Amino acid sequence: MTADLTEDRFLNGRITLWQPLRGYRAAMDPVFLAAAVPAQAGQTVLELGCGAGAASLCLHARVPGLVIHGVERQADYAELARRNAARNGAAMTVTEADLTDLPPVLRGLSVDHVIANPPYFPSGGGTAADDPGRETALREETPLAQWLDTAFRRLRPGGFLTLIQAADRLPEVLAAIAARGGSTMVLPVAARMGRPARRVIVQCRKGAKGPFTLLAPFILHSGDEHERDGESLTDEARAILRDAAPLALPPRAKFRL
Amino acid sequence: MTADLTEDRFLNGRITLWQPLRGYRAAMDPVFLAAAVPAQAGQTVLELGCGAGAASLCLHARVPGLVIHGVERQADYAELARRNAARNGAAMTVTEADLTDLPPVLRGLSVDHVIANPPYFPSGGGTAADDPGRETALREETPLAQWLDTAFRRLRPGGFLTLIQAADRLPEVLAAIAARGGSTMVLPVAARMGRPARRVIVQCRKGAKGPFTLLAPFILHSGDEHERDGESLTDEARAILRDAAPLALPPRAKFRL
Repeated sequence: MTADLTEDRFLNGRITLWQPLRGYRAAMDPVFLAAAVPAQAGQTVLELGCGAGAASLCLHARVPGLVIHGVERQADYAELARRNAARNGAAMTVTEADLTDLPPVLRGLSVDHVIANPPYFPSGGGTAADDPGRETALREETPLAQWLDTAFRRLRPGGFLTLIQAADRLPEVLAAIAARGGSTMVLPVAARMGRPARRVIVQCRKGAKGPFTLLAPFILHSGDEHERDGESLTDEARAILRDAAPLALPPRAKFRL
Repeated sequence: MTADLTEDRFLNGRITLWQPLRGYRAAMDPVFLAAAVPAQAGQTVLELGCGAGAASLCLHARVPGLVIHGVERQADYAELARRNAARNGAAMTVTEADLTDLPPVLRGLSVDHVIANPPYFPSGGGTAADDPGRETALREETPLAQWLDTAFRRLRPGGFLTLIQAADRLPEVLAAIAARGGSTMVLPVAARMGRPARRVIVQCRKGAKGPFTLLAPFILHSGDEHERDGESLTDEARAILRDAAPLALPPRAKFRL
């Protein structure tokens, strides 16, 4: 696979990732996912479907001293994630496994945070991606509800689930969270002011009782016209993508089980 | 009840409603609900829990020639809705009934639109309103899922369900819509730019297959400070509240069952 890798810089070079040239390549979504995780130094994080490690390693770059566990079904991406973790000095283990059938070492975990950037396209329908690895990363085989089921099983009570997903799948995400997570917040992510949300960042706490909150959208680009995206980023988006700034959601009420 | 009524003008005087002085009094929400209904002249509309008729009569003021059926459980409000319909020249029948047990005349309906502004507060907990009629209007006795069940039963295939609800109950609304409505659109309504949504207007088509869309929020007031609300309305909010302008959601793809 080495011949087909590229070396990509994230967070203005704070981390560098090997990624497949033609497979699934991380863009902005894992960076925003990582920015929204309210992790504190020394906590444990489980990433479901970590791919080459972009989200976990962006989180590592922002919050020191995390212990991170990644699960990835595709062997070549899992191997890349290991290489990328070592290269960036992260305390990250990567396990090649299906998230519906975790090995005992992971089934024993009770973590502070679960993060995930699950495939956006439901199984069936649509045009398959050319590259099998990219297809696996984008096209759902494991139902979204099973991702969340695994997430809730591995979270400690009061632990945070943070995920990013295509906005059109918000009803499924909320249905899967249902009674198991409370204090749920939805942050719509829109390309420009006034546009429908393209992504949603959804965060909840396992077993919490707080109300559901639909936040004001996070806007990626300023202006109405489609300029070159890199030049039209809002200050808030640029701070996250370039300076590893947190994407802080509003504080919740004190945790109540 | 007459001694305790007030005469209230909506839509800059296009309609006038008798409302109880101390009971449930319509404010902006039914006006926005009515503005979001994509009704066309000659269609039929069923309003569940119509109260004194504010939403139905605002819709009547904007779209000519509608045939409107209101259902209201509280006898005094049903009677007020009849008086208000007559006063404003609307072709509106009002039936005193529980929406979970509609009389045969309503069970036989297959309508183009169902609209509702269900109670915002779940049963149990919180402080009861002083006035029993207001308490009944605000506090849920019939579960939200039953409101939506009745709505879907009375809608024709391809008919529109439009409702306004407290934003913190969006997950329940979406769960109740689930597989029965498609092309669902959620319009968050926020007091000011950057604030979490306070209300959501949710609209779907019975049996449609279109994707879920989370729209950009509708903003009620301009500026960051809390001025006198009447003076800080955005142009879009003022057009709806004063000029009976529609709150047009984006066009959907052609209806597919």
